[in-house]
Amino acid sequence: MGLVIPLDERGRDDGIDALSALVQSDLERVNQLILSRTGSDVQMIPEVANHLISSGGKRLRPLLTLASAKLVGYSGEGHIRLAAAVEFMHTATLLHDDVVDASEMRRGKLAARMLWGNEASVLVGDFLLGQAFKMMVEVGSLSCLDILSTAATVIAEGEVMQLVAAKNIATTEDEYLAVIRGKTAALFAAACEVGPALVGSSKAEQAACRSYGANLGIAFQLVDDALDYGGREAKLGKKVGDDLREGKITLPVIFAVRRGTNGEREFWKRTLEAGEIDDDSLETAIDLLQRHGAIDETFARARHYGAIARDALALFPDGQAKSAMLDAVSFVTSRAH
Amino acid sequence: MGLVIPLDERGRDDGIDALSALVQSDLERVNQLILSRTGSDVQMIPEVANHLISSGGKRLRPLLTLASAKLVGYSGEGHIRLAAAVEFMHTATLLHDDVVDASEMRRGKLAARMLWGNEASVLVGDFLLGQAFKMMVEVGSLSCLDILSTAATVIAEGEVMQLVAAKNIATTEDEYLAVIRGKTAALFAAACEVGPALVGSSKAEQAACRSYGANLGIAFQLVDDALDYGGREAKLGKKVGDDLREGKITLPVIFAVRRGTNGEREFWKRTLEAGEIDDDSLETAIDLLQRHGAIDETFARARHYGAIARDALALFPDGQAKSAMLDAVSFVTSRAH
Repeated sequence: MGLVIPLDERGRDDGIDALSALVQSDLERVNQLILSRTGSDVQMIPEVANHLISSGGKRLRPLLTLASAKLVGYSGEGHIRLAAAVEFMHTATLLHDDVVDASEMRRGKLAARMLWGNEASVLVGDFLLGQAFKMMVEVGSLSCLDILSTAATVIAEGEVMQLVAAKNIATTEDEYLAVIRGKTAALFAAACEVGPALVGSSKAEQAACRSYGANLGIAFQLVDDALDYGGREAKLGKKVGDDLREGKITLPVIFAVRRGTNGEREFWKRTLEAGEIDDDSLETAIDLLQRHGAIDETFARARHYGAIARDALALFPDGQAKSAMLDAVSFVTSRAH
Repeated sequence: MGLVIPLDERGRDDGIDALSALVQSDLERVNQLILSRTGSDVQMIPEVANHLISSGGKRLRPLLTLASAKLVGYSGEGHIRLAAAVEFMHTATLLHDDVVDASEMRRGKLAARMLWGNEASVLVGDFLLGQAFKMMVEVGSLSCLDILSTAATVIAEGEVMQLVAAKNIATTEDEYLAVIRGKTAALFAAACEVGPALVGSSKAEQAACRSYGANLGIAFQLVDDALDYGGREAKLGKKVGDDLREGKITLPVIFAVRRGTNGEREFWKRTLEAGEIDDDSLETAIDLLQRHGAIDETFARARHYGAIARDALALFPDGQAKSAMLDAVSFVTSRAH
């Protein structure tokens, strides 16, 4: 008897658990620092910031910063501030994204903009971005500052690209990859590169950590895109369909559009380009995606990038840090919620 | 015969002209750099950025960075990038402000958000902020990075404070000053401090330049506030009344509220707190402001901060740079458009 669990799905929580266990005491210090650095005499700032920061994000990006610092044997203090800076950059992006997408929900709670307005989301995002840079400056590594400020521009470029591509069902897989290399993968890559940069690791090691992060970030985003249509098991109770409502062209849709009939393409045009959404639209969309294997194919693509991330770490000797970072790839490519 | 021109109004354009002449070749390089650093493969980014950057701003902040670098005898190259970074920070703030204030116009043109949407304004602002930090990193001075990243958080704090104070006519002069110390003066102060920081000037000289910038920034904002109600000669043809429409509490209003009758305070409550604005509201507001000398008093306050800015420079020997920076104070406190 027993349930058959595909290899890839096994222990998907172990993945992130190994990472958390590896850097547990560091992560607690990062969380303390995050809390203290959202502080301001202007009371609205910690309110808005903590609404999002304390809403149960996985802290995946700062975990990666801490783990990759451990991977290269860093023994200083700078990685704590850099990990907090990475999380602040991520939070700032989310606050601004919610305004850009007019999102109502974020992590199962009302988005900050629904409670404090778009104005506060924009400005508190700016504050967190400023604090992120202040923390990097305190660490004092110009190469880390270079890596993270470059990431900040590339993230914004990716987001603008997405804006331009939105509501255009002719978007190609390559164009879409360029978007997510910017909006998602750039920060994952930077998060993984700053530890080695701080230690002064070899160029090869820095490039390896960067490649690990970038490809893990792409995989993460692709799985997110699949989950927004309910993943392999639609209707898990999770709120799905945000991307459809926002007219976002993601990889599952790109597959379904290419593989679909003319009539199906009319549906995608009406729904994503013209924004004509009714009660049945999401169900129809999920049916079409499943008919063309678009969700499975998206997961397959995610595993491809996950494999590149794994291989990137090959030049490091085996050990706890490497093992936890490899497990994190499995977590990312097989998470179902 | 001849027209009698008050001392303060004389040669108000000479002020900025002296500054421009002082650093003319440097400013051309800054403008070149600004142009090249708005570049991106994502075409929308230079479009949105240049719409605002090329719209005839005075480049006052980068001019101050160049002038204060000259004041302390800086002979390197870093001030060019820092001046461009300062202008990018300013531009990012304007793009985000337009979203926050839902402004339709900026510098006599349609605001970027009216042409490309709020989304693009938020994201291109983020891009410019990232580029600003990249340029600072290229200069490689951690003290400059410290000064400018701190300014970024303080600016955001000031903006959030303004958001909280908006629509509250009980705001005091002190509370208002705290807002503009953040939203306006912090960047002026940083713009003037980075040159001396780059040279490694004495603490006293750095503090003097910082104080000059901060107080000049306060004066600049107060004059702006007065001009938004038409200045001393209302109805100059300039678009006035934005602050009234947006429910912004500025110093002229604070004076008029304090000095007014109960009936007048009802008017301010209706207009600024409840947003009940009709065709006569602006005229009534200007009448009340003039009746209580609120515009003149605001100019007087501006001259007070201008005087502090002037005195801050006393410890520097006389010379072209100092003279141009002193003239800039007259320009700021007496500009009438």
